[in-house]
Amino acid sequence: MNTTIDLLLKHRSIRKYTEDPIPDEHIRQAVIAGQAASTSSAVQAATILHITRDEDRRALVPLTGGQEKIADCGAFFVVCGDSRRHRLICERDGMPYDARLEAFLLTVVDATLFAQNLVIAFESMGYGICYVGGLRNQLDEVDAVLELPEGVYPLYGLCVGVPAEDPMDRPRLPIDAVLLRDRYPSDADMLEKIDAYDHNYRDYMKKRSGKDRGWSGSMARKFVEPRRAYLAGYYAAKGADLT
Amino acid sequence: MNTTIDLLLKHRSIRKYTEDPIPDEHIRQAVIAGQAASTSSAVQAATILHITRDEDRRALVPLTGGQEKIADCGAFFVVCGDSRRHRLICERDGMPYDARLEAFLLTVVDATLFAQNLVIAFESMGYGICYVGGLRNQLDEVDAVLELPEGVYPLYGLCVGVPAEDPMDRPRLPIDAVLLRDRYPSDADMLEKIDAYDHNYRDYMKKRSGKDRGWSGSMARKFVEPRRAYLAGYYAAKGADLT
Repeated sequence: MNTTIDLLLKHRSIRKYTEDPIPDEHIRQAVIAGQAASTSSAVQAATILHITRDEDRRALVPLTGGQEKIADCGAFFVVCGDSRRHRLICERDGMPYDARLEAFLLTVVDATLFAQNLVIAFESMGYGICYVGGLRNQLDEVDAVLELPEGVYPLYGLCVGVPAEDPMDRPRLPIDAVLLRDRYPSDADMLEKIDAYDHNYRDYMKKRSGKDRGWSGSMARKFVEPRRAYLAGYYAAKGADLT
Repeated sequence: MNTTIDLLLKHRSIRKYTEDPIPDEHIRQAVIAGQAASTSSAVQAATILHITRDEDRRALVPLTGGQEKIADCGAFFVVCGDSRRHRLICERDGMPYDARLEAFLLTVVDATLFAQNLVIAFESMGYGICYVGGLRNQLDEVDAVLELPEGVYPLYGLCVGVPAEDPMDRPRLPIDAVLLRDRYPSDADMLEKIDAYDHNYRDYMKKRSGKDRGWSGSMARKFVEPRRAYLAGYYAAKGADLT
């Protein structure tokens, strides 16, 4: 163990923040740490939009299922996969930009490696963070607020601030359900691991919210209804070819 | 600055390793740090396949463009987005699993947050790492080696080992090309930033490989030809619905 691993293990999403803003110098330092992450053949397909205008942050709250923390946190960012720089270069040279699934996937992976470095840098300074997947609830409307150009794919939000809560640890799947040796196990093996985990997770949910719900129950509820079915159409309209 | 940010800034991909293996205890510690990363509504859609069989590691070398480091590094992993646990749960309850783009994207983001924590944990122990995007060169063949079941999406490889080289820093885009305030800049503004960067990048490439090539030249070459055009078909065959 070392101080960095300690920091990683201490991570919990923070959803309540003090009113303290985040100095620009801290933001720049964290972004430079984000840029230091691996990037596929140096494509650097990540852009971090720092949303500083009050009216924009307030406009995003109802578009993300009412997440007031977007307006209240110390700093709010929109993490984007970014193919626009590559498109501009290709266009300038009179060459068509290739936008197949590989190119989209590159931007998602690159942006997420960047974002996680950014998060760890902020946490190492004592800030708390929360990713906001709810940004994908209504991307057409989010886009109308932020006026994103073609080739820039908003993926999720990121709230950062001085923590004003100290939430419980949420238990994770047993390590031998996610670290697999050479081959994927049988369905019966995997379901056995899930059952054992359901037990722990149910205890956690009872303490946290009083609900008697295991992990598998939550996941079944989450994945039986198509969610955000408009999404592929949105990204295609932004220039991604997902074929 | 602090020790964690120092570590993030020191990152460079390592492509040559000593023959030292990595103790299982270090791998487990790094994976537990990976599990501590954020995960969308606790879906935990990441699986880390630890490839320990020599014959499998050797089989992957020609499938990734001849990357010998896959056979030579201390430990080799395949990072997978994993919807299979969710599918098993839904099937057991007699409910159809929803596989639209949102569900695929969740697995990519979750797996990549996990992977970057894993990487940082390994680097904090003194190991070097290299992501292997070349794993996506021939996924049908990779899949035949690893026998992946439906719903498990191999995304990239990860080599880890004791560094046997000390490569140069590769310069990154200027921070104001990736940290944007409120709105995306004009094309002319962005191209100006790219031009300034091309200058630095050309110096780096000359020192590293003797090639006189700027960043935009490399990117144009990379994105004008459709790469890995089979990819969407592969993931669809594994159960992802990218619509």
